[in-house]
Amino acid sequence: MTYTLGQIAAIVQGTIEGDAAAVITDIAEIQYAQPGQLSFIANPKYTKYLSTTAAEALLVAKDFEEKFKNLVRVENPNYAFSTLIARFRPSTPFPKPGIDPSAKIAKSAKLGQEIYIGPNVIISDQVTIGDHSILFGNTYFGAESQIGSSVIIYANVSIYHRCIIGDNCRIHSGTVIGSDGFGFVRTDTGISKIPQEGGVIIEEDVEIGANCAIDRGTLGNTVIGKGTKLDNLIQVAHNVKIGQYCFFAGQSGIAGSTQIKDGVTVAGQVGIAGHLTVGEGAMIAAQSGISKDVPPHTIMFGYPAQERHKAWRELANIRSIPDLKERLKTLENEITQLKQRT
Amino acid sequence: MTYTLGQIAAIVQGTIEGDAAAVITDIAEIQYAQPGQLSFIANPKYTKYLSTTAAEALLVAKDFEEKFKNLVRVENPNYAFSTLIARFRPSTPFPKPGIDPSAKIAKSAKLGQEIYIGPNVIISDQVTIGDHSILFGNTYFGAESQIGSSVIIYANVSIYHRCIIGDNCRIHSGTVIGSDGFGFVRTDTGISKIPQEGGVIIEEDVEIGANCAIDRGTLGNTVIGKGTKLDNLIQVAHNVKIGQYCFFAGQSGIAGSTQIKDGVTVAGQVGIAGHLTVGEGAMIAAQSGISKDVPPHTIMFGYPAQERHKAWRELANIRSIPDLKERLKTLENEITQLKQRT
Amino acid sequence: MTYTLGQIAAIVQGTIEGDAAAVITDIAEIQYAQPGQLSFIANPKYTKYLSTTAAEALLVAKDFEEKFKNLVRVENPNYAFSTLIARFRPSTPFPKPGIDPSAKIAKSAKLGQEIYIGPNVIISDQVTIGDHSILFGNTYFGAESQIGSSVIIYANVSIYHRCIIGDNCRIHSGTVIGSDGFGFVRTDTGISKIPQEGGVIIEEDVEIGANCAIDRGTLGNTVIGKGTKLDNLIQVAHNVKIGQYCFFAGQSGIAGSTQIKDGVTVAGQVGIAGHLTVGEGAMIAAQSGISKDVPPHTIMFGYPAQERHKAWRELANIRSIPDLKERLKTLENEITQLKQRT
Repeated sequence: MTYTLGQIAAIVQGTIEGDAAAVITDIAEIQYAQPGQLSFIANPKYTKYLSTTAAEALLVAKDFEEKFKNLVRVENPNYAFSTLIARFRPSTPFPKPGIDPSAKIAKSAKLGQEIYIGPNVIISDQVTIGDHSILFGNTYFGAESQIGSSVIIYANVSIYHRCIIGDNCRIHSGTVIGSDGFGFVRTDTGISKIPQEGGVIIEEDVEIGANCAIDRGTLGNTVIGKGTKLDNLIQVAHNVKIGQYCFFAGQSGIAGSTQIKDGVTVAGQVGIAGHLTVGEGAMIAAQSGISKDVPPHTIMFGYPAQERHKAWRELANIRSIPDLKERLKTLENEITQLKQRT
Repeated sequence: MTYTLGQIAAIVQGTIEGDAAAVITDIAEIQYAQPGQLSFIANPKYTKYLSTTAAEALLVAKDFEEKFKNLVRVENPNYAFSTLIARFRPSTPFPKPGIDPSAKIAKSAKLGQEIYIGPNVIISDQVTIGDHSILFGNTYFGAESQIGSSVIIYANVSIYHRCIIGDNCRIHSGTVIGSDGFGFVRTDTGISKIPQEGGVIIEEDVEIGANCAIDRGTLGNTVIGKGTKLDNLIQVAHNVKIGQYCFFAGQSGIAGSTQIKDGVTVAGQVGIAGHLTVGEGAMIAAQSGISKDVPPHTIMFGYPAQERHKAWRELANIRSIPDLKERLKTLENEITQLKQRT
Repeated sequence: MTYTLGQIAAIVQGTIEGDAAAVITDIAEIQYAQPGQLSFIANPKYTKYLSTTAAEALLVAKDFEEKFKNLVRVENPNYAFSTLIARFRPSTPFPKPGIDPSAKIAKSAKLGQEIYIGPNVIISDQVTIGDHSILFGNTYFGAESQIGSSVIIYANVSIYHRCIIGDNCRIHSGTVIGSDGFGFVRTDTGISKIPQEGGVIIEEDVEIGANCAIDRGTLGNTVIGKGTKLDNLIQVAHNVKIGQYCFFAGQSGIAGSTQIKDGVTVAGQVGIAGHLTVGEGAMIAAQSGISKDVPPHTIMFGYPAQERHKAWRELANIRSIPDLKERLKTLENEITQLKQRT
């Protein structure tokens, strides 16, 4: 597909600075872009490629201050660029509706319309699958689980019994939903397992990455709210309640019974202890360890984590120790001299 | 099922303060409990719900000091409550004995009595499966592996060749047992792989969560001792020996050849370096990084980890730097004045 | 198999100090070795077993300074020992070439010679599989993926569409390759998914452990270079480029678009932020958090990570605070006295 820069600007509702007749044949990241290719700058780190990129044109923010031969200014360059991907790249090839004969589907299961069920899929008793859902091969659905409509479940996902997956969810390969929570009590005679008889509710529009583990609740449900997105290798322990439109980056983990309110952003490898509340709109920097409740709209950092500015001051304090030593040494010398004088 | 509070007290061997005739129709967590429901307080954090909960009655510890309309005092409220779950909730629906015709079972495999083998299970040459075990669908058992009796293996588990799983073990979905240890040597001509020809021994009564990775030993075995419990997404490297009745919370990892003695408790996202010994009964706080041997019955915290009180003092020291600066500034002023005076 | 120590020395090109006629019947780790068994010392931590081991002989480095009845001195004891494993231990039993009738293979797939395809393997449209490759049971290969020759893919691996796996790669169970990168944009109306239409290229001689997650690129490819080795539970985010002959230990993670140059060594539970460059030959200590570019051949440690010596000085500074307090207290007393005197 080929577009003029003018056509591109119309699609992304941007304003051109440069040649509206420039021909765009493809899109690329700025460091790899070739003549004819459109790229973008959203993260200022990539401004360093401005002088070397062969890109034909760039999508940039309205207040972008650098010069380039052809610019298209837009509200959100990242978003604008993402809307163009489908025009230049073949999209993910999804299978057409149909049920592979090797799938094992319980007679009591209820299947929606226009669904795809791949080879070796196991659908247990009383499972329901909504319309237009796609279940890739080798997936497992435990008894009485409910899968919404327009859901995509990738290969080798395991969903235990009595879990609920909302409409438009997408769950990547290897993820496990509904495994037993880690509930044990040390007793006089050894260790006793606490039955884990709750479930998991994943609300609509949730995406969960690869190889995550979402445990079922003990009595009630573990819940992931509408529109929340999880990256890969994330642990969500039993009884956790995650609100709507949260982001969790890779390898983060949330211990049991913690509540995460709406709009929270959690970076990679963060750990959040159990029985806490993380307030609405809070942000947690990578590798932080959260051991106390987090107030709403607070940015946390560190191990143990503190409010960001407090954590930074602490780091600055640590880095001021050599200066303190120096000043202490000076004072000691001065005192010695003073004592000799008096 | 409906019970009087008197009946409940008899079941959990507790003593009532309140109305023995109160009717209990269900159980719930304290913050969600409704009239007729029994709840409990084990963690003091939940005492804050005392004034708002609609619970009919609470299981509490013998020395619980707050007041509530109906209390049942017991030795261990967490344990007592857990024993009631099976009375009020439908238990996990396990499949009945039987072998799905789609399972691929080698002729040389030896299968016990009254076992369940789900769809698409792969049982390789010389595998043995003990009586009453349950192998969910899409699981894989490599050649010569030995699975004990009353074992539960959930969907999509992979067990490599020559691994041993003891009686009464439970292994959750996505977990991998017996993958090659991470053994390579840099040589003049590149990187050489060290053959990993040992095995894995999981002793009886072990539970392993979802998406864990337990590597096989190089020569000898990686061992997980009797009664030990692992949460999700845990890494156990080659040649590790874990003792009996240990707990490992989610996303913790143990590097190669380390020995963990009996009764150790490891919190979430802890990393333990290789070739170390963690002594009996030690406890390691969340996200700690263990880089040295840990003496028995020691509580460790921090990165790098230290004995807990030492780590706390260090944190307190860091937080005293602003005070040190203040005092240093005062001294500097005073010295300046003194010098002018003398 | 039985060897004299002289034969062993010839195999590993070592020099004997002791009895060349000593009979070696097996190999073992030093702490478990019995009479007749050969062991080795590569890590000095294991020297402590010298006085108690029953080993018949030891492989040691040329400059090893301790005494033992029978030593064989070699260039690299770890490597020398690893080359003996195949002589004393039965090697991993790989299946013979053949295609299980339960495998679901698209007509458009192209299969090489002498390959093994296990039960329930799913091979989608246009997939190519090279000669002598081994695909264990329950693996999934998405449309248009290309698998090289002499590749080993263990059970329950998921490879999405349009991913390329080079010759001689080995991918352990539960690993996911080609899942969508974590690309979303917050917009006025909610969260918009950025299409992830790039691929993954795994070059030749790469080994990837169990339960890793390697995301596909957004436009271009996520790349893992020739000879690189990944341990278990590792996250490689979208658009990451990893060079040749790198090592990544368990549970480490690399955020989006970061470049790792050749020969980098990353220890366990390390996190590397997005859009960074880690220079050639750099080494990163366990649990470090990398938030800035790392110069070549630099050893990094800490959270946030710094050059190793700088990080160590910082730790030493923190541990000097009690001394600073002591000295400050002394000065305060002295000043008080001085003020009284003047």
